[in-house]
Amino acid sequence: MFKRYQLHWNVGHTRNPDDTAVERVPAMVPGAVQLDWARAKGWGDFFFGDNWWRYLWMEDEFWSYVSRLDLPCVEEGHRLIFVCRGVDYRFLVRLNGVELYRSEGMFTPFEIDLTGRAVTGDRLEVLVYPAPKSMPTPSDLTTGEESGQDVPYSKLRFFRINGRDQANQSCKPAVSYGWDFHPRLIPLGIWDETYLELRPSCHMRDVETRYTLADDLSTAEVGVEIRLSEAGPGTLRWRMLNPRGQVCLESEASASQSPLTLRAKLDAPALWWPNGQGDAALYLSRVELCDHQGLVVQRVDAMVGFRTVRLVTHPATWVEPSEFPKSRSVPPITLEVNGRRIFCKGSNWVNPHVFPGVITEDTYRHLLELVKNANMNLLRCWGGAIVNKESFFELCDRMGIMVWQEFPLACARYEGTPDYLKVLNQESCSIIHRLRRHPCVAIWCGGNELFNGWSKMTDQDLAIRLLNRNCYDLDPSRPFLPTSPVMGMGHGHYLFRDAQGLEVFQIQSQSKCTAYTEFGCPGPSSAEDLRKIIPEQDLFPPRAGTAWETHHAFNAWVEGSWLQKEVMEDYFGPSGSLEQFVEHGQRLQAEGYKCIFEEARRQKPTCSMALNWCFNEPWPSAVNNNLISWPSTPKPAYVAVAASCRPVLASARIPKFRWKAGETFSVELGMLSDLPEKTEGGPMEAWLRIGQQEEQLLLRWEVPSLEANVNIAGPIVRYVLPPVAAREMVLSLRMPDNPDRDSQYTLMYVPAVANNDNQRAVLNL
Amino acid sequence: MFKRYQLHWNVGHTRNPDDTAVERVPAMVPGAVQLDWARAKGWGDFFFGDNWWRYLWMEDEFWSYVSRLDLPCVEEGHRLIFVCRGVDYRFLVRLNGVELYRSEGMFTPFEIDLTGRAVTGDRLEVLVYPAPKSMPTPSDLTTGEESGQDVPYSKLRFFRINGRDQANQSCKPAVSYGWDFHPRLIPLGIWDETYLELRPSCHMRDVETRYTLADDLSTAEVGVEIRLSEAGPGTLRWRMLNPRGQVCLESEASASQSPLTLRAKLDAPALWWPNGQGDAALYLSRVELCDHQGLVVQRVDAMVGFRTVRLVTHPATWVEPSEFPKSRSVPPITLEVNGRRIFCKGSNWVNPHVFPGVITEDTYRHLLELVKNANMNLLRCWGGAIVNKESFFELCDRMGIMVWQEFPLACARYEGTPDYLKVLNQESCSIIHRLRRHPCVAIWCGGNELFNGWSKMTDQDLAIRLLNRNCYDLDPSRPFLPTSPVMGMGHGHYLFRDAQGLEVFQIQSQSKCTAYTEFGCPGPSSAEDLRKIIPEQDLFPPRAGTAWETHHAFNAWVEGSWLQKEVMEDYFGPSGSLEQFVEHGQRLQAEGYKCIFEEARRQKPTCSMALNWCFNEPWPSAVNNNLISWPSTPKPAYVAVAASCRPVLASARIPKFRWKAGETFSVELGMLSDLPEKTEGGPMEAWLRIGQQEEQLLLRWEVPSLEANVNIAGPIVRYVLPPVAAREMVLSLRMPDNPDRDSQYTLMYVPAVANNDNQRAVLNL
Repeated sequence: MFKRYQLHWNVGHTRNPDDTAVERVPAMVPGAVQLDWARAKGWGDFFFGDNWWRYLWMEDEFWSYVSRLDLPCVEEGHRLIFVCRGVDYRFLVRLNGVELYRSEGMFTPFEIDLTGRAVTGDRLEVLVYPAPKSMPTPSDLTTGEESGQDVPYSKLRFFRINGRDQANQSCKPAVSYGWDFHPRLIPLGIWDETYLELRPSCHMRDVETRYTLADDLSTAEVGVEIRLSEAGPGTLRWRMLNPRGQVCLESEASASQSPLTLRAKLDAPALWWPNGQGDAALYLSRVELCDHQGLVVQRVDAMVGFRTVRLVTHPATWVEPSEFPKSRSVPPITLEVNGRRIFCKGSNWVNPHVFPGVITEDTYRHLLELVKNANMNLLRCWGGAIVNKESFFELCDRMGIMVWQEFPLACARYEGTPDYLKVLNQESCSIIHRLRRHPCVAIWCGGNELFNGWSKMTDQDLAIRLLNRNCYDLDPSRPFLPTSPVMGMGHGHYLFRDAQGLEVFQIQSQSKCTAYTEFGCPGPSSAEDLRKIIPEQDLFPPRAGTAWETHHAFNAWVEGSWLQKEVMEDYFGPSGSLEQFVEHGQRLQAEGYKCIFEEARRQKPTCSMALNWCFNEPWPSAVNNNLISWPSTPKPAYVAVAASCRPVLASARIPKFRWKAGETFSVELGMLSDLPEKTEGGPMEAWLRIGQQEEQLLLRWEVPSLEANVNIAGPIVRYVLPPVAAREMVLSLRMPDNPDRDSQYTLMYVPAVANNDNQRAVLNL
Repeated sequence: MFKRYQLHWNVGHTRNPDDTAVERVPAMVPGAVQLDWARAKGWGDFFFGDNWWRYLWMEDEFWSYVSRLDLPCVEEGHRLIFVCRGVDYRFLVRLNGVELYRSEGMFTPFEIDLTGRAVTGDRLEVLVYPAPKSMPTPSDLTTGEESGQDVPYSKLRFFRINGRDQANQSCKPAVSYGWDFHPRLIPLGIWDETYLELRPSCHMRDVETRYTLADDLSTAEVGVEIRLSEAGPGTLRWRMLNPRGQVCLESEASASQSPLTLRAKLDAPALWWPNGQGDAALYLSRVELCDHQGLVVQRVDAMVGFRTVRLVTHPATWVEPSEFPKSRSVPPITLEVNGRRIFCKGSNWVNPHVFPGVITEDTYRHLLELVKNANMNLLRCWGGAIVNKESFFELCDRMGIMVWQEFPLACARYEGTPDYLKVLNQESCSIIHRLRRHPCVAIWCGGNELFNGWSKMTDQDLAIRLLNRNCYDLDPSRPFLPTSPVMGMGHGHYLFRDAQGLEVFQIQSQSKCTAYTEFGCPGPSSAEDLRKIIPEQDLFPPRAGTAWETHHAFNAWVEGSWLQKEVMEDYFGPSGSLEQFVEHGQRLQAEGYKCIFEEARRQKPTCSMALNWCFNEPWPSAVNNNLISWPSTPKPAYVAVAASCRPVLASARIPKFRWKAGETFSVELGMLSDLPEKTEGGPMEAWLRIGQQEEQLLLRWEVPSLEANVNIAGPIVRYVLPPVAAREMVLSLRMPDNPDRDSQYTLMYVPAVANNDNQRAVLNL
């Protein structure tokens, strides 16, 4: 029989792998050494103020986890296995000081058979090495345990911009080395489930259900590959249950050989569809190992979703330019699922916690329900972050959320040295082997922004070629992208208004990308959340050189960019309070995102994706491009994006944010539809309300019925804005027959021409 | 001991693989069944007139080669092996009607051990299947053996444009299915060396010398991998001789195990350099298998060239555009050999014969000497063609000619069906395994123009990913390109003047590609050569619907494009004779090519390659973009290109071809240098001679000394053209101190403005 035993661990640090830690504290496993230490020392929340600075020294220590074994009795015909799903990052395992195992890489699980090797009272140790670094941290930024709170703000650029390069010879996710939205906090420790397990000697080590769908999707050839620890006298029973819980396939075989594959053919499988396109139908594939009496010794369940996925070209791809010389056409970036082209609406997913060891299924569930409710169908799991734990993918499978999964390479030049390629090979094989079972995984990608000036990698880099090779060998039916963006795709902008005065309204409508796989609009966190991270005396007004700065309001990306204080003041005037400041910033974020999502959708079918940067965040920021504040509170922009991502909606193409009296308000109406079936049209009314004035009906348009997955461009409203004492106007699109398709846009209104030059520049656009 | 025995073959055809051929004729092996049959029937040259049309039916027959064995005595401890380096394309081998072997693919050699299986008098048969076709030929284009000479010119478009698609599920080179420069003639048969060999039972089956150069190129770790047929009592002796014939490494081992690797370290290896950059230094790696008495039983020699090769980025690659969204940077296409960036001057190599089976080392040598003497350093072996025989690569190794080797995919959509991927896997592995030993091979490439509208393949295609995988697995240190062109690179134009009136002079200077890997300027063959292929009555003037058409003068690409008769007449007036017609056409070709090569060189370093389409041709054409007429006669354009590819030369950037009296003749002077070292400058004089007038000195420029591998832009000549009774003018750049750097350009001169619109359009450019 199977039985799990949790181990009790403590942890301490040393400067030398052969020393014994002087002091040990209780360890939470899975977790992170930093959290254990801080908890023991009573440091308070790692995210408050500049507490993070106290953790810095820990990245350069060896951390020794020790557990005194208390072992069960191992009966004849059984094995006692130490099971570990992941240690972050480089480590070795010792039993009474004798090395049993050594590895590098957090994504490769391992097992150690302790049968006959360990007895109760033995000392099991997992020694975690310092965080890998291809170059040292500048000495003026290294600290010791006793360091005070004097954060050298002027020097933090290293952590925000250059720190990531230290990760360019490892598979350690680069984000924790410092990013424009992430503090310098590099987790170390046992980060995934770890326990002892008693097992029968003959047990299933790996079970994988794979299938091939017929071209017309009418049947599936299903095979279950079973690897046993050793051949045995028992029987393997396989059953497949359809989404209604009915047995639809059954087969069995003797456990006398390994590996073995059971095969069967399934007729008319219910298909797995992404959110908004149909049910995410899941089958249960259950394999049981039974002993000679027919009793179930072990059961392995897996959910199976039947679907095909390809990257296909958009209709204009093959139109050749008439001029010579001719280069190549753009690569495909339209996802086709079960033969149907899907416009991908989604977001970039980042680590939901600075210390991924503490992430649980609940962490994921709350966030992923928000993804689903935002009408999104794809998350880009960006290469700067971890590859998530199993429950993330299980939830995405259930919710129909497709995953674009990157390997852990981001924004740096990962040179193909033999040592690096070796660990990249191991880690990528582990990742592919685990995730290819999930229908939600739609795209493999080499990593983030690797073919750009700040990374300087190219198609020739061995790391990229290795990843393409491994994906081809282990999972050829899934698309592989070397990086994002590739030719035709775009990343950015990340501001509501750029330095030249261009707003998202102009930037986005001038862009002609095949996919927008990153774009951002920053907005502050709520006042309530800000109070949890900024010390009272620094709360308002926001200033550089305070916790506002380390929480990304200042000097995070472009100077002061996430805050955009000047832009806010230019539109709204100075904020009188934290609450007002938050309200102004959040409104810009919401309106900006609405514009981008709807404009990207309008560019279908030459555009195929709109994924904002970013959905969530790893710790509570002061200002960020995210939609969900840490850990899982929606910002107003979330509500706006959810509305803009509805399957079908009335939409307005708006040329600018700020309007003045006397100007002709000119917006193009349209209907956006990603519905997989034809839908009715009906009347659409455009109403404008300026300030407290009575709302005016500008136009009524009889929308024709919409073909499946096709938008319609409608008439252009033209209306001379009257002079009114107001600062705001609201455009409402109403569809009386289908009010769930209504949309609303809140814009700035100026009663007269303003005097300063900035404003005039905007007004004259 | 080793001993080879040639076999005598005859060949006949059937419609059914199990039938016996009714008639057999003597076969030349290696060769092609078509040539054997035509020779036996006395059909005359396949390239004369429309003789090719008589061959068409042969592509759909089974061809049975039979040899009655006359075997030597096989002593104890020896084996008798049937060795075949290649059968084109699908085939089986039978002995007395019993199948011994079956395969598909012309690039995978095979051996069959006949020891104890065959006796004298036995019937050895190689049965070659009909040419592979993924779709049938239209019935109105299929013929029988008795077909007459009525070529349906109006229907030949299928062979020129669509025929290639028939090859899109095989590794049969597509060009022979019909191309704009190749007749529809699909070779079949035993196309590479094939013989019986008597060998000791213990012999070396494969010997490969591989090396790793230190980063600073100062040492090489050399290893020789030896695979024996079976372990034996003998000794393996390895010696390496440097380019001066001196032994520089020595090692030996017992032949008691296989495989085994002998290793040694070589200090200060002489490096292999491409033509124009230094010596193509080659070492001899010799492995001898000696018997117990020390007598040499077998010797395997290989030439080894020490060099590194990479694709690197040009200096402007990483300059990011200031606007958002940002896409990726262009991929690298600058070849760096031994750490030195090389501007690649070269050409596209096509099959030197329609029937590659008859190609010998002599065929290659004559052509490759012309390549070398043209100052070229790279040949692109285009994916529509065969992968050449060993002697091609041995000669390129010796001459310092780099090879860009494509796999056999071109201009079609090669769908990744399991059957196709299987044969592509086998053939690509065979190709890589053979060619990776050659220092000349610089780039692997998936095939020709696959990511364009006429092919519709993309980065996602499994065929491309498989090729990347195999190149990565078997030869990771060589660059791999998925196709040509990729982003930033260009193919075309292929005319002296396009339909809009733009000449190469304008097209090329407006282009900003990272590499020009195809561009063409058509010119007719010499009158002497034309008389060998066009029947007397059709010789002049050239007309469609005659052998001129099937030899590519009409309707080959764009309507009538290769001939460009209207363009020629616009510049020169109607030609009065075949000789005058040839002279005019060849002059346009020569001046056009000179312009493109020099302009591409001028764009260094953002441009890294200039490879014209094409160097040679597979049969005698009437008009073609080639530099060398079949089989190996240089056209005047060859001489012009050789001059434009000199390591260092005076060069003029000329804005147009035709000038008129009163216009300001304005050309930019410059020096082009690809020399690997600094070189002196010196005075340069620009002289202009109009018609028979006295030559005028326009300018004298003191050229400064030139840094290694750097061009210099010089002054701009400005000179008002006087009225002269002439039709031609010659610009001469003279460097009295270095007359080998002189250049000369022959341009059109018009004494007064012409009346017709076309001419005016050109004059006003």
